[in-house]
Order: sequence, then structure tokens, then C-alpha cells
Amino acid sequence: MSDNSYFKHHVFFCTNQRKNGEACCANHGADKLRAYAKDKVKSLKLSGEGKVRINSAGCLDRCDQGPVMVVYPEAVWYTFVDEEDIDEIVESHLKNGKVVERLKV
Amino acid sequence: MSDNSYFKHHVFFCTNQRKNGEACCANHGADKLRAYAKDKVKSLKLSGEGKVRINSAGCLDRCDQGPVMVVYPEAVWYTFVDEEDIDEIVESHLKNGKVVERLKV
Repeated sequence: MSDNSYFKHHVFFCTNQRKNGEACCANHGADKLRAYAKDKVKSLKLSGEGKVRINSAGCLDRCDQGPVMVVYPEAVWYTFVDEEDIDEIVESHLKNGKVVERLKV
Repeated sequence: MSDNSYFKHHVFFCTNQRKNGEACCANHGADKLRAYAKDKVKSLKLSGEGKVRINSAGCLDRCDQGPVMVVYPEAVWYTFVDEEDIDEIVESHLKNGKVVERLKV
């Protein structure tokens, strides 16, 4: 059904903040890197219906592998460390459709 | 690639609150109904890896059709009014794999 997807690539960043010092995506700059990804997608004119959407989401329940994002409808999960990782995911996957194998979880 | 999806059905409820009285999902009880859906999925033992995950998300950019949720990887979008709508989506789609045509957007 992915041919009918409202967004070609719909990206969800876990930005959940857990308490008591438990491992969570928010402790790894997830929200800042989500904002960076959103700006980059916009600057490349990739955003909008039929194209790319960057969202924040609650806990995606893969805390130990965090920070994580998931790209639908293709259901590809990534982890990331810094802006260079985000650049590669945006340019390779979201712009050119090529999955970034080294960052997959 | 949906055969490899970490979650069989990954559901995102827009729970974004817009300001200044603009149309938004949060004005239609989206967060309360998300919590209801999460509880129902759990009570039916549908939740977990390889099964169903219910998440909240930021603005899904379909405000005028809200409240909305999207189910991935199948990329099916729904609107909903009350708990009965949620019951139908959970039981028909998430449990039995049958899309609820009347609630699609």
C-alpha cells in the first residue's frame, strides 16, 4: 500500500524523556537533531504532501538502541549521533531513496 | 518492506495543540482517545514487538481533517469521533487486519 502513502517518507523521531536517569532518546539530543532534520528537509524543498514529513513522537519502545527514528511506510529504523548522521539520512534516504545501512537498527 | 516492520501495526495519533483557536486534533479529544486506544490494545494483548504500538505524535499536518491517526507500514489514515470508533479500528484493523473504510481520510 505504500504507493498510496500520503507522505512518501514519514519520519518519526522518538523525543521521549524518561525519568530517573533511565536510557532514553531525549538524553541523546533527539529533539535538537529532529529540529535539525526538519530544517534540512525544508531547505532541500523535500517537505510537504507526497514528499517528506518529519515528526516527533512519544516513546518508540526501543530505548536501549536510542536515539532512534523510524521512516515509514518502508519501516526503516535508524540510530544517529550527530548532524552528519542526519545529513546522510536526509540526503541518501529521504532525497535519493537509498537506505543508510550503517545507521540501521 | 512491511514484512520486516518491527511493529506489525505502528499507530501515531496527532496530539498537537495549536494556538489561537485554530483547528487541531487536540481540540477533539485526541489525547484522551489515544490513551483509550493504548489501554484497549493492551487489554487485548495486542501490544509489543511484532505486534501493535500506539504512539502520540506532533502535528501530522492534516489539521482540517482532524482528529487523525495514521497506521504504518500500511499508511492508512483515520479520523475518529469517540470510543466506538476507536473500538472498531482496534478490533477490525489492528486485531483482524481489516481496514475500516468508513473512517478513512
